[in-house]
This record gives sequence, structure tokens and C-alpha cells, in this order.
Amino acid sequence: MGVNGYGTIGKRVADAVAAQPDMELVGVTKASPDYGVEAAARRGYDLYAAVDDRADEFAAAGVDLTGTLGDLLDAVDVIVDCAPSGVGERNAPVYEAHDTPAIFQGGEDAAVAEASFNARGCFEAARDADAVRVVSCNTTALSRLLAPLDEAYGVEKARVTLVRRGGDPSETDRGPINDIVPDPATVPSHHGPDVNEILPDLAVDTAALKAPVTGMHTHSVNVTLETEPDESGVRDLLGDEDRIFLVPEGAGIDGAGALKEYAADAGRPRSDLWENCVWEESISVTGRDLYLFQNVHQEADVVPENVDAIRAMTTDVDAPESMARTNETLGVGLRSRLGNDELGRAELAADD
Amino acid sequence: MGVNGYGTIGKRVADAVAAQPDMELVGVTKASPDYGVEAAARRGYDLYAAVDDRADEFAAAGVDLTGTLGDLLDAVDVIVDCAPSGVGERNAPVYEAHDTPAIFQGGEDAAVAEASFNARGCFEAARDADAVRVVSCNTTALSRLLAPLDEAYGVEKARVTLVRRGGDPSETDRGPINDIVPDPATVPSHHGPDVNEILPDLAVDTAALKAPVTGMHTHSVNVTLETEPDESGVRDLLGDEDRIFLVPEGAGIDGAGALKEYAADAGRPRSDLWENCVWEESISVTGRDLYLFQNVHQEADVVPENVDAIRAMTTDVDAPESMARTNETLGVGLRSRLGNDELGRAELAADD
Repeated sequence: MGVNGYGTIGKRVADAVAAQPDMELVGVTKASPDYGVEAAARRGYDLYAAVDDRADEFAAAGVDLTGTLGDLLDAVDVIVDCAPSGVGERNAPVYEAHDTPAIFQGGEDAAVAEASFNARGCFEAARDADAVRVVSCNTTALSRLLAPLDEAYGVEKARVTLVRRGGDPSETDRGPINDIVPDPATVPSHHGPDVNEILPDLAVDTAALKAPVTGMHTHSVNVTLETEPDESGVRDLLGDEDRIFLVPEGAGIDGAGALKEYAADAGRPRSDLWENCVWEESISVTGRDLYLFQNVHQEADVVPENVDAIRAMTTDVDAPESMARTNETLGVGLRSRLGNDELGRAELAADD
Repeated sequence: MGVNGYGTIGKRVADAVAAQPDMELVGVTKASPDYGVEAAARRGYDLYAAVDDRADEFAAAGVDLTGTLGDLLDAVDVIVDCAPSGVGERNAPVYEAHDTPAIFQGGEDAAVAEASFNARGCFEAARDADAVRVVSCNTTALSRLLAPLDEAYGVEKARVTLVRRGGDPSETDRGPINDIVPDPATVPSHHGPDVNEILPDLAVDTAALKAPVTGMHTHSVNVTLETEPDESGVRDLLGDEDRIFLVPEGAGIDGAGALKEYAADAGRPRSDLWENCVWEESISVTGRDLYLFQNVHQEADVVPENVDAIRAMTTDVDAPESMARTNETLGVGLRSRLGNDELGRAELAADD
């Protein structure tokens, strides 16, 4: 495998691929020799220039290249495109010219690939495709949440307000500062239709804002279900999903800051949260209306999905087996032993 | 009339009362001689000590007092309590002891008063009451929005996510910084039941977050209506409400910052937005589901409601007449001549 674009998503996907016993990371590309090349070098990843005529810049910066993008494409079974939004579409003809199957990210239009992908929602869609698009962080999180709810209760209609982070922590040119911006101001946003690329028959309306935060997206979710759930049933259902982390009541985790702190304390690389983080306390039911809040780590939640997409395209491993391998190798499946019951706290004290 | 607590809300209510030809502002109280006393003095308002045994502090700061709270209570027909949340409840027995009818703010529990009040929703509820509570900024805005929708289409169920400002611009001790916090983490929040103090039969579920902004609250609103609306009908309906400002498409107003700038340019005192600010572009309908975004200026939108509450308690003026007088004297009813049609722009160019 290769990764084209060793940036926010690319460096995480590269590490995740390198951690799979059944995959080999051949190399990664960068467009310019910035601080990212040091991270790649420390990990021993072979580096390729993403743009042929900028290879000189790397030499000038004292960075050794193994080759350029074309060399990487000829050496891999699948290229994972982690270029900035919109650049993937421009790369697509290059991948085709080298006859290299490609995985794109959710910043691209769905039309860039034969199939959109979420492991929980539509693993088999990637099976015979030469080009697959792993949907965006928000669509990934909504698919993971809505798929089990639809299976267990039937979704009559989902209505979600996405309060999006303005930019990632390293994106110093993003806004807003001290404002909440309807983005887009029109409703519904594109996120609902994007969920339908994964779950075609599910009725979902989304409205999106952006806020002056960098840590995570926050979703305020309403789902009108076809059959009336009870809260403990929903908690159990979601708690059984490895890619959903139920944030326990009483653990003192009140927002993205504490969630990232929790992930860092758990030894997660880059404090990554690969799971949807659903506040257990927020899960509530009135009639057939389910409400909850979930947080989404925009830099991380698509990473295991990229690994599964590679397996779906290149092997005959099925969805449960692929997801289990990915979860096991990365350590996906954060579980808290904190809770409101005495037993949970006692166990924690004994173990730690 | 008197105002007990010349703070964020109190100073605005005092100015609004002073602007009414049919009302007289006798004076205002402050708990301590901070910068607020200068604003009161500049306007020529008589100042009273809110707490008897702290009158010395004012003398020490060189501030002349007309008297203390008790003196003010004996001189007025109605006292408007604008004390911090929770302090109003402690003041209630004092008002009763002086036999002075009182208006409380929405930070108090509904039980503090005989009736909760919103001019558009339940003006007559205050008619014979000795104690009235003007509901909070968020409840005020939701009542103004849902009352006309319920009258025109019938509300089957409203579901609202409130993304609240963390603190007012002057509140330097508030958070969050760089985080979005479910607040409360449990759903539904208290806002829905508070709307039912105004509109008792309306089904409304609310979920609340707080964000690192100071300017305004943002509401992401879904209303399932009993009859199917069309978007232009909803725009016309809301556009006819004087206390709703339809933020025009194409005016370049993308958030609270630009809204406040617009208000400042319009000559509004303190850049106040007394109206709900509904993004015209966001009004959308799918089947019987209406969606929209609205912004709420937490420091200002209850101000005209306080004026109307005074009139409801002390006169036999009816709701439309009182609201018209308040709107006229304050200048409530922001209208933009910007729009997407050529005519609107031409008129603006000719006038300004």
C-alpha cells in the first residue's frame, strides 16, 4: 500500500496500515519538505515526491527521496489518496493511468469513486471496485450510529445538527473566532445526502454550524424510530459497537478537551479517538424520539475505515473479520470502567 | 417604575422604560459602586443601594445615593428585578413586604412568580398578577417563533438544539475556551418545559450545548407542523412579526459578529438586537418538517418583553397596542432592504 499525501489523515492512515500484519506500507508522498517529513523519517517510511517537478525542493532541504508519485503507484496494489479536499479528484486520472486502484477521502465528491465506503454501513460496496471513497468524518460517525439503530428499531427519520470544529489544531488560518456560523446557511446540509451514499434508504436531514473550536465535531442527534426504544436498550445496543465509545456518566468528561485528555492518558497515538464518543447521559427517549449527543474526532475516526477499505478491495475477508483485525491491531474499542455503580469503581481501583 | 439591579439586563430595561411616554423611571439600584454607576449618572437616573448595609461603599467611592432599595420600592408601582439568577428569588419576600408588584427575569424558577410572560405568547397572563416572570432570552425567542407557527400551521412537535454563548462579552470568568460542552449533558434541557410555561400545549424537546462565543445564542430549529407549509409562506409569516428579523440572503451577514455590526451601523444602543434573527436562507421545508437557524441576543431580546409586562400589569392596554407602543418607542422591527432582487438593491442605492 501507499499513501499519497502525508498530512493530517495520511500520516494516521500510514501508521494504521504499517500496524497491520496482512499489509505492507511501501511509502508515502509529500508535496513539500515541511515538518511532516521528519515524522515519516522517524518511522522509517520511504518518502516520495507527490509532484514530479518539486523533487528538487526536497534535495535542497536535504531530504532523501525514494522516488516520485509515479514510482510509488507502480509499486503498490492500492494507493490511499489523502490529498487535500478536491485535489484527490485531480489525482484520479493519474491513478487510472498507472492502473492503480485508489481509495479517496470524504472531502471529494461521491462521483470520484465507484463506491462510497463505511465498514459498518456498506463494507461489501468496495469489494470489486477500483476506486472507493471513504466518507467524511461526520458521515462516518453518522453511519456508525444510524446503522445499528436502523437494524434494531427502524429509523423513521433522523434529524441532526452538526456543530463542526472551525479547523484542526494545526490550521492557523481557519475561523471563526468567537462566532457560530451557519455553514452552509441553507438547510439541509450535504451531510444527510452523504449518509445516503452509505445507507440509501434512510431518511436523514442535517443542519450544520461551525464553531470556534479545534478539538472535535459535536452532533446533536434526534432519531424518530419506527418502534419505541427504551434508554437502557439503546445504551446496550450502542455499547456493543466497538467503534462507539459510551462516555460514562460521572467520569468528569464534559467536552472534547477531556475526551482528548482521556485518550492521551490511555496511550493513544496523537490522542486519537477513532470511535464515535456518545455521551451516555445524553441518551434519552420520549415516545419514539431518541436524543443524544456525540463527539467526532475529525482527524481520526476515518482511519480504521481506510484500513477496512483496503481489505475489502484486495482480499476476500468479510466485514466482521476485517473490522475485528483493524480494531485489534490499532486498539479500537475504548471502554471505560468508570460508571455510576459501586462495582465499576471498585474494579478500577483494584486494577490500576 | 424601578429597576433593582443595574447590570446587563437592568441597564437596558431602565433605558427602555425611560423611553416610554406612559412610564416613569423612578430609579435604579446597584449592589456596589462599579463602572455601572457612571452609566446611570450620565443618564440622570437616581441611584439606590440594592443592599442596605453596603450604602457606605458608595459614599466612600464618592457616589451620591438617593436612598436604598426599600425607599425605591415604596416609590414605585412596579419593581423590575434584574438581579443575578437566583437572587431574584431571595428578593421576592422583600418586594412582598413592601407590597410592591414585581417582574422577575428568566434566570429564576417559574415558581418565583404567579405567571411567566412573553408578549407574543401570553400577554394576558400578567394582567392581574402581582409577580410576573419574563422568561429567559432563549425561551422568549422560541415563544416568538413557535407561537405564529402554531397559529398558522399547528405544531406537531418542535425539536431545537440550542448552541448557547458561553458568557456575555464582559464576563471574563466564563468558559468554555475551545470546546463545545453539552450543558446539560442530559436531554431534554429545561428550555422546552420553560416554553410550556408560555405555550402550555406545545410539544417541544430541546437539547443544549455551550460554545466559546460571547455574542449570541444560535438555535438550530426543527418543527414538524400539522399541515405542510411552503417556504415562502413561512418567510412571509415570520417576516410579518415585528420581533423577528429575517436576515436577508446575500447581505453578507454570516454570524453574530456581522449581526452586531449591522445593529451598530443601524444606530442601535449597545448594538442591541431585540429581535430574533432568523436566517432567511435557512428556512427550508421537507414534507411537514420545517428547519431554520435563528440567533438570539441574550442581553437584549427580553428588554421589550419587560416593557410590555409592566403595561400588562399596570394598565388595561391590550397586547397588540402595548407591543406596538414598545416597538415604536424603542425602534424594534429591524427590516433590511437588501435582498436578492434587483429592485431591493436599487431602492437601497437611491435612499442611502
